[in-house]
Amino acid sequence: MQSLPFIYHGQSSDWLVREGNTLLVTLITDKAMTYSKVMLRHEPDNEEYLVEMVLSHSDKYLNYWTASFELNHDRDVTHYVFKLLTKQGQFWLAGNGVTRRIPAKESHFKYNACHQPPEWVHQQVFYQIFPDRFCNGKPDISVKQDEYLVSGGKKAVVAKQWGEPVDTKHGYGGCEFYGGDLYGVEEKLDYLQQLGVTALYLNPIFTAPSNHKYDCADYLQIDPHLGTNDHFAQLCDNLHQRGMKVMLDAVFNHTSTEHPWFNLQGLQPTSGAYQSPQSPYRDYYFFDGDSHHYIGWKGIQSLPVLNFENQQVRDYIYQSEDSVIKHWLKPPYQIDGWRFDVIHMLGEGEGAKNNAHYVKAFRQAAKQVNPDCYVLGEHFFEASQWLQGDQEDGAMNYYGFAHPVRALLARLDISFDPIEISVNDFVTWQAEARAKLPWQNQLAQLNQLDSHDTARFLELVKHQPELFKIAASMLFSYVGTPCIYYGTEIGMLGSHDPDNRRTMDWDAVEHSDYLPWLQQLIKIRKQSPALYKGDYMTLHFDDQCLVYARLYQGEVVVSAFNLSKTSIEREIPVWQVNIDETPLTNLLDSSVYLPQNGVLKLSLPPLSSALLSNAVNG
Amino acid sequence: MQSLPFIYHGQSSDWLVREGNTLLVTLITDKAMTYSKVMLRHEPDNEEYLVEMVLSHSDKYLNYWTASFELNHDRDVTHYVFKLLTKQGQFWLAGNGVTRRIPAKESHFKYNACHQPPEWVHQQVFYQIFPDRFCNGKPDISVKQDEYLVSGGKKAVVAKQWGEPVDTKHGYGGCEFYGGDLYGVEEKLDYLQQLGVTALYLNPIFTAPSNHKYDCADYLQIDPHLGTNDHFAQLCDNLHQRGMKVMLDAVFNHTSTEHPWFNLQGLQPTSGAYQSPQSPYRDYYFFDGDSHHYIGWKGIQSLPVLNFENQQVRDYIYQSEDSVIKHWLKPPYQIDGWRFDVIHMLGEGEGAKNNAHYVKAFRQAAKQVNPDCYVLGEHFFEASQWLQGDQEDGAMNYYGFAHPVRALLARLDISFDPIEISVNDFVTWQAEARAKLPWQNQLAQLNQLDSHDTARFLELVKHQPELFKIAASMLFSYVGTPCIYYGTEIGMLGSHDPDNRRTMDWDAVEHSDYLPWLQQLIKIRKQSPALYKGDYMTLHFDDQCLVYARLYQGEVVVSAFNLSKTSIEREIPVWQVNIDETPLTNLLDSSVYLPQNGVLKLSLPPLSSALLSNAVNG
Repeated sequence: MQSLPFIYHGQSSDWLVREGNTLLVTLITDKAMTYSKVMLRHEPDNEEYLVEMVLSHSDKYLNYWTASFELNHDRDVTHYVFKLLTKQGQFWLAGNGVTRRIPAKESHFKYNACHQPPEWVHQQVFYQIFPDRFCNGKPDISVKQDEYLVSGGKKAVVAKQWGEPVDTKHGYGGCEFYGGDLYGVEEKLDYLQQLGVTALYLNPIFTAPSNHKYDCADYLQIDPHLGTNDHFAQLCDNLHQRGMKVMLDAVFNHTSTEHPWFNLQGLQPTSGAYQSPQSPYRDYYFFDGDSHHYIGWKGIQSLPVLNFENQQVRDYIYQSEDSVIKHWLKPPYQIDGWRFDVIHMLGEGEGAKNNAHYVKAFRQAAKQVNPDCYVLGEHFFEASQWLQGDQEDGAMNYYGFAHPVRALLARLDISFDPIEISVNDFVTWQAEARAKLPWQNQLAQLNQLDSHDTARFLELVKHQPELFKIAASMLFSYVGTPCIYYGTEIGMLGSHDPDNRRTMDWDAVEHSDYLPWLQQLIKIRKQSPALYKGDYMTLHFDDQCLVYARLYQGEVVVSAFNLSKTSIEREIPVWQVNIDETPLTNLLDSSVYLPQNGVLKLSLPPLSSALLSNAVNG
Repeated sequence: MQSLPFIYHGQSSDWLVREGNTLLVTLITDKAMTYSKVMLRHEPDNEEYLVEMVLSHSDKYLNYWTASFELNHDRDVTHYVFKLLTKQGQFWLAGNGVTRRIPAKESHFKYNACHQPPEWVHQQVFYQIFPDRFCNGKPDISVKQDEYLVSGGKKAVVAKQWGEPVDTKHGYGGCEFYGGDLYGVEEKLDYLQQLGVTALYLNPIFTAPSNHKYDCADYLQIDPHLGTNDHFAQLCDNLHQRGMKVMLDAVFNHTSTEHPWFNLQGLQPTSGAYQSPQSPYRDYYFFDGDSHHYIGWKGIQSLPVLNFENQQVRDYIYQSEDSVIKHWLKPPYQIDGWRFDVIHMLGEGEGAKNNAHYVKAFRQAAKQVNPDCYVLGEHFFEASQWLQGDQEDGAMNYYGFAHPVRALLARLDISFDPIEISVNDFVTWQAEARAKLPWQNQLAQLNQLDSHDTARFLELVKHQPELFKIAASMLFSYVGTPCIYYGTEIGMLGSHDPDNRRTMDWDAVEHSDYLPWLQQLIKIRKQSPALYKGDYMTLHFDDQCLVYARLYQGEVVVSAFNLSKTSIEREIPVWQVNIDETPLTNLLDSSVYLPQNGVLKLSLPPLSSALLSNAVNG
C-alpha cells in the first residue's frame, strides 16, 4: 500500500481568496506524484459536489492546483476537502492531514463567510495581569488589614507585604491582598512595551470583595482598591495612545453574594434576592422555592449563579444600550476586548441551557458597539463548538496549546495527574484542535503557557530552563495569539492557585535569564507575518523531535525542537515549503544553514529550539 | 512508553442502566493492569466533573468498575468518557477506543435521554424492494408500451419483458417498465419469510411518471400501475398479520414536474406553479421571479424542489392532521416507518436552510401518530449530525458500513473511484462512525451491501463469491440493522443505476449458491441477541484479518474474517470477552474451538469468515 504522500493546502490569503461569494483555492502536491484527477469537494446543500481542480503551474518540487467554488448560501460556514485519485487508490486532504478515505466531517476545512475575528488580534502579544499582584502604584488605596469581611462575613481580609509568600495551606487564597492596582499597571507600561507587549488582558477589576474579583459586586465600578473609573479611562487612553490594546475579564456566570441583587449580608434588607422571596432580584438567581437554597457556581455558595432566563439580567448584562458589555466598550474607556469567564457554563437554570444563544447574544452586543471587539471565551477543555465563528473569536487555548505542551514537556495534565504522550500524540492532538476551527479563529486563539488558573510552567517542568525555553519558542511560533502571564517572562515560579499568583518579582527583572529570551522571541514574532498569520505545516516529527513551518507570502520560518537529551541530526524536507537552496538563518543565534536540493540537514543540541527563517533581515 | 491497555465499556443494558435521571455505568479493565484511580468524566454544565469509579468485583481476567452519575438536565444528550491513572501516565476510553489524552468531544460516549429509536428496529432483517422489478402480480395494470409520456413529455414509456436487459446506454433508465407491482410483492411474502426477512422497505410507490417514482405526482395515491390504496391497505394488513413490518420511501425534497402543484405540461393551466406566477402553488417551489426558471434537485429540471418556508407545503407534508407523513401511519395502512429521501438537502430556498428544523418536525409528526415509527434518513455521506437522537432514528448507513466494506473488499468508492485502505483504516473508519452516535442510534442504522443507488456488491467484487460471503457475514454480524436489496440473496449482478435494477431472477432462486448462505446468516442473526443488540468489541486486526466480538448477557459471538488468499492462524484474546476455556462453535460450519487460558487459537481458510458462538444451541 502506498505511504501517505505530501499534499498541502493553507488557509491564509496565499491559498484562499474570496471574491464576492466565490472562494479561489490553491492546493499543492509533490511533483513526483501523478494524480489522475484532483478534486475539491464541498457540500452546498449538505450533498457532495466535486469540482475538478486545474494544474495551474509547477516549479521544481511542487504542482499547484486551483479551483473556485461558491460559498454556502444556507449557512455561515462552508466546509471543503480535497480528493486526489491515483491508479491504485485515492488520497484526501482535510484540516488534520492526509487520509486514504473521506475525512471525518469535523476535520474538513472551514470558512465562515459571515463572522471573522478582528484582524488586529493575531498581531498582538498579550500580557495577562492579575492586578493585586503586579505593581502597587498607589499604596493609600491598598486594602488594609481587617478592613472588611469576605466569604459571606466569615473571614477578614489580610494585608500582606510585597514578596511575602501567599497562603497555600489555609484556603485564604482569595482574601490576601498585596496592594497591586491599576496605577501600578500604568506605571509599568514602559516596561511592558520594552518587553514587546502590545495588549493587556486584565483579570477582573470591577468592585468585588476577593483579591481575584471573580465575585463581582458592581459591574459598573472599578474596585476602589484598584483605582477609579476616571483613572481607568485615563489608563485606557494612555494604552491607546501607545498603540496598545486592553481586554477586560467579564464574569457574568455568577456574582458575589455581596452584589446588591443578592445581598447575603442583608445590607439592604428589603431588596436582596437572598433576603426575601419577594425581592425584585429573586429571579436573577436560582432559588429553591422560598428557601435560602440557591445554586452556586460549581456548588460554591459565595458565587450565586445568574439566571439568563430573566429579562432584567439580560438587559443589564448585554441587551440594553447601557448594558455592562456595551458600557465599557464605549467612551471614555473603549476597551478592545472581553474575556468571558466560564462562558460555556452560563445559561438558564441548572446546567447551561441555551448557552449558545447567550454566547451569540454577548457577541452581538459587543460587536454592535465595536465590530473589532475581541470576543474571547474561557474554556479549559475542547471548545470547538464555541469557535465556529458565530460565537467566540477565540478561546483561552488550553485544549489545543497549553495542555498538549504541558503534557509533552511537563508530563502533567491540568489536574496535576501524570500524562505521557508521544510526539505523534502531540502532533495529532494539536492538528485535531486546529482542524476543527475556521482558520481565522485558529489565529485568534489565545495561547498561554500558564495563567492565574494553572501552575507556573517553569514550576511544572521542575525548574528546567531548557524545557521552559522550548515551550516559549513553541508559544511564539505556533498558530494563535501568544499571551504571557505576568512574571512568566522572568521565570517566576509557583504551583497551582493561589501559589501561581505571587507578587511580581521586580528585583528579578534586572538579572533574569529568561527576560532576554522572551524579549527576543517577541521581537522575532512581531517582525514575522509568517509567525503571526502564516499557515502551519508539520515538516517532520519522530520520538525525539518536532519540526514545523509557518509560511506567508514567501516568508518561511522553520521551527525545530529537539526534545531529547542528546544532540540530533535530521534531514528536513524543506522542498515542501518551496525552499531549494535558500540559506536559512536561525533567528535565535544567527547561525546559517544551507539546504541542498530541498533538504535541510539540521543539527540540534540537546533540548533546544531553532527558528530558521528565509527572510533576508531575519 | 506503555502500549495501550485493554479497557472497555459497552452501552447495552449490560453496561449502562438508567434509573430515573441516573446512569449506572460499568467499565472493565485488564486485571493485570494497576490503576491508581479510575474516573468517569461528564459535563453536566459543559464543565468537567470527575466521578471516581469503584472496583465492584473481579474475575479471572477482568476488573469491573462502576459509578453512577446524573443525566444532563439542560440537553437531551449526555456525554461521558473514562480517565484511568497509572503511576506514569493516564489512559482514556471513548467510543472509538483508548487514548493517552482526553478524547476529542465527538467521540465521547453519548446517551440521549429523551429520544431513542424504537426497540423493534434492530430485531429486524429488512428487505428492500424496487417494485417495478420484483414481481409482476397483476399484468393487466402493467404500464403499456407508449402508454404515456415522461420527462416533461419528451419520451414515451417503454414496456419490457421480464428478464430483458435494462437500457444502460441511452439514459432511458427511468421510463422502462417491467410490470412489477404490489400484488407481486404480496405473492412473494412466503418466499421472503422463508428467507427470514421480517420487514420490507419499499422504494416509492406513490403515483409518479417514472419507474423509480422519486418524482411524485400524488403523495396520497398508490401508483395505479403498482396497485391501489385499498390493495396496499390489504398488503399492510397481511404483513402485520405475519408479524412483519413495512417502511415506505418519502420523497419530500422535490416533486415531479407533473405534480398538479407544478404542472409543467399545463394539464390544469390555471393552477400550476409553472403555468402562472399567480398560481396559488407558485411559492411551493423556487422560481426566479416571474420567469420559468426554477430550482431542480441537483439541477435536474424534472425534479422541482419544494419550498418548506411555505406554510401550505408544511401543512400538507407533515404539519396538519391529514398530512402525508401522518396519513400513511394511520389506519388502514399503519406503516411502520418512513425512509426519507435526500433528507439532508431539504429546507428553505437554495441550499438546505433550517434543515434540522424540518427533520425534527418530520420526526415529531411521525412519532405523534406512532411513537414506534422508524424514522430513517438517506445520506450517502457522514450523517452524524442527523443521528444524535432528536432527528433520525437511523440512516442508510453508507458512511459507516457500506462504504468501508466496499473500500476494503471491492477497492472502489461510491463514485467508482479506486480506493485502497488498510484493515487499520477500515477499523478506524467504522469506529469513528459508531463513536459519534448514541448507542441506540448505532443499532438503528440500516446497513446494506448495495441498494437501488449503488452497483450490486457481487458485481463490485468482480463476481468473487468469497468476498461476497465475507461481506454478507459482516452485514449480519455488525452493529446496525441489516437490509438486503432484492436479489442480493441470490447473487444478482448489475453495475450502477439503472443496471442495478434488473428484474428479480426468480429462476435463479431454485439453484442459487448464495441463498442458503444468506438464509443461514439471517437465521444466525435472528437467534442471537448478541448479534442484533449486543455490544461491539474489536478483538484483533492486522493486515490480513479482522476479528470482532458482539456480546450480550453472557452470549458472545466472535466474528473472524481472513481477508488474505492464504490460510492464517491467529491467537485471539477472548479473555477480553470473559471467555476462559468455554468451547466456541462456528455457527457457519459447526466446527468447535476450545480456547485455553483465555486465548483462542484460530485457523481460517483463505478468504473466509467464522462466527464463533459460546451459546449452547449456537
